[in-house]
Amino acid sequence: MYKINTNYQKLPGSYLFSTIAKKVAAFSEANPDKNVIRLGIGDVTQPLAPAVIEALHQAVDEMGKAETFRGYAPDLGYEFLRNAIVENDYKPRGCDIGADEVFVSDGAKSDSANIQELFDVENKIAVCDPVYPVYVDSNVMSGRTGTYDPQKGTWSDVIYMPCTMENGFVPEFPKEAPDMIYLCLPNNPTGTTITKSQLQEWVDYANRVGAVIIYDAAYEAYISESDVAHSIYECEGAKTCAIELKSYSKNAGFTGVRLGYTVVPKELKCGDVSLNGMWARRHGTKFNGAPYIVQRAGEATYSPEGKAQLKEQVAYYMKNASAIKQGLQDAGYTVFGGVNAPYIWLKTPGSMTSWEFFDDLLERANVVGTPGSGFGPSGEGYFRLTAFGTWENTLAALERIRKL
Amino acid sequence: MYKINTNYQKLPGSYLFSTIAKKVAAFSEANPDKNVIRLGIGDVTQPLAPAVIEALHQAVDEMGKAETFRGYAPDLGYEFLRNAIVENDYKPRGCDIGADEVFVSDGAKSDSANIQELFDVENKIAVCDPVYPVYVDSNVMSGRTGTYDPQKGTWSDVIYMPCTMENGFVPEFPKEAPDMIYLCLPNNPTGTTITKSQLQEWVDYANRVGAVIIYDAAYEAYISESDVAHSIYECEGAKTCAIELKSYSKNAGFTGVRLGYTVVPKELKCGDVSLNGMWARRHGTKFNGAPYIVQRAGEATYSPEGKAQLKEQVAYYMKNASAIKQGLQDAGYTVFGGVNAPYIWLKTPGSMTSWEFFDDLLERANVVGTPGSGFGPSGEGYFRLTAFGTWENTLAALERIRKL
Repeated sequence: MYKINTNYQKLPGSYLFSTIAKKVAAFSEANPDKNVIRLGIGDVTQPLAPAVIEALHQAVDEMGKAETFRGYAPDLGYEFLRNAIVENDYKPRGCDIGADEVFVSDGAKSDSANIQELFDVENKIAVCDPVYPVYVDSNVMSGRTGTYDPQKGTWSDVIYMPCTMENGFVPEFPKEAPDMIYLCLPNNPTGTTITKSQLQEWVDYANRVGAVIIYDAAYEAYISESDVAHSIYECEGAKTCAIELKSYSKNAGFTGVRLGYTVVPKELKCGDVSLNGMWARRHGTKFNGAPYIVQRAGEATYSPEGKAQLKEQVAYYMKNASAIKQGLQDAGYTVFGGVNAPYIWLKTPGSMTSWEFFDDLLERANVVGTPGSGFGPSGEGYFRLTAFGTWENTLAALERIRKL
Repeated sequence: MYKINTNYQKLPGSYLFSTIAKKVAAFSEANPDKNVIRLGIGDVTQPLAPAVIEALHQAVDEMGKAETFRGYAPDLGYEFLRNAIVENDYKPRGCDIGADEVFVSDGAKSDSANIQELFDVENKIAVCDPVYPVYVDSNVMSGRTGTYDPQKGTWSDVIYMPCTMENGFVPEFPKEAPDMIYLCLPNNPTGTTITKSQLQEWVDYANRVGAVIIYDAAYEAYISESDVAHSIYECEGAKTCAIELKSYSKNAGFTGVRLGYTVVPKELKCGDVSLNGMWARRHGTKFNGAPYIVQRAGEATYSPEGKAQLKEQVAYYMKNASAIKQGLQDAGYTVFGGVNAPYIWLKTPGSMTSWEFFDDLLERANVVGTPGSGFGPSGEGYFRLTAFGTWENTLAALERIRKL
């Protein structure tokens, strides 16, 4: 008789955003007259940029003609896209990344969940707390996290690095040296980040203790301050210790288009074994490439028109972020983030837990946010709002929250 | 110091189709004047059907307007597509499959590689030999296959079910009861299949020994004989033992579009645990949906126009299959498949090994096929040609082979 992977059973409850979706659906069904504003899940609302739409149409036309039809994509992604990535995301920042170190994928969520497969199941992971749930859950599914303590909301074999207002949301080196360090900067969910020199310390630390950094740079486009690194490869020595994940979901609104990429430098080696080769093998065996039309859409984000249009989109969302931040501060809330990231991280009022505030906000203001405790125990007492709504909805939600 | 997943190191050589691609690239570079005809990898050549192109354009337009823009897709896939699947692929065949048992994905390759994650690493897999390499390689990466014997080309903990001309390419029940049985029918690479009553015996066997069948029905659209099942759920009792994988790559030419789905019936349980729930959890945690525009393209394959156009495409390729089969037989080759599948499986001439024939065919006829031994030891002495070329190229390749 076959047996199942019992690690799945260790997972407490459901995936955070599925739980929220179900709660909101139940509320909407019970209150069909209420206009619910969603600032919970980090989903964008602005349509795709005209340059992207044009590229999609053109690629679709190509797929309809025998002369220009494209079947299976190359394992690593089309060269036109990988070259554009190198030329635009790395070279201008002084990062020496080759096109054969770039792996195009269907998004950073999949990559951030799959990357742990390259590592031994006995490796110990370190995560910021609060944390994007996928990093931990994907390791739970692989049996890398030990046992769950439902009281504490923590796993016995995971090293947590608390990021709270007390330490300015900057993770500290853990007492026990980890094998794999997940860093998401600018950070989801707190909307905060660290400086380039602070990141350099993490790179030095990883090289010193022999850890690999899985660096999620999904929110890089929202960086507004000059002392913040756009890529971990801006730091010296990062190529021997870091894998970088990038997404087009937030800078180009591709949440429903699905495109991302992962950089695995050739210098990143465990003994003699190149992790670049391992990831190439995984890509070739367990994945079949992002759609051609979507890769052309990705390429269009780097054209002069595409760049200008995306800059406007990012500015649109960051205007929301500023408004939320200012509005909540004026209403007496303690607020973080929103300067280098599209997320606002607020302290829940009084002694309210994160989920109490979630329910209260949904019921009385009909606004959906994300409870901080859903991201880890140090998120308790915090709450995330996203700047990805429309300007009108953002203002309306603010107005409702102010009236609470 | 972090450690890597050493199972990757056990993998011999590279992924079969990557090896072929490199060999062909080297040949083309050395012989730029030769016109190489590719009947190797199972990639299609006909452009997307007009109904699909129209749906893609329309969905792209929707993504360009705020009112119709779509962000993250629902975890399981859009209802419009899951409903179309149930109504068209299952109901007409008397299969009682619900839309919440259908999981839309970026293709059957990913699903067939990822599905093993749901199972215990100690489970023993059984595969047909020859076999689509992804089934075995994904299990190697998870550490489920024991050690590799480079002489035999087999893994110590894998049960091989030889499919050769001696047994008519019909796998026999193994002596040792497996936990997980991979069946691809109609078969890749042999192009042969089994009858519905033979498949019923496999379902009964799996239920009897407590095995789960991972049923890859990627080539279902090519079935021409009436006694062959289009879905394993046509067999009684399949819902308690079988997961079915489907692809749009071959019936609709989506190799570069990327869309597939997996059916995990709710009745499929290991003790109290529903595998449907496990796969839902995996989808929600490690995947973020197929692109909206691609899901609309999938829906279009079920419209009256779409169905008619795809029927023509399948007929086009099957005309190629018949021509290859007849042509090779006339030239004295022993040939199988090509009746219910777009693959032709031929005996290599004389005592030639599969790779010897590959090299010979590439060098003397400039035709690319796939060496049977690449699919497993029982594939030695066989060779696969696909019917996915253009009619003109297929005839030209045949002519060259005849002249050898």
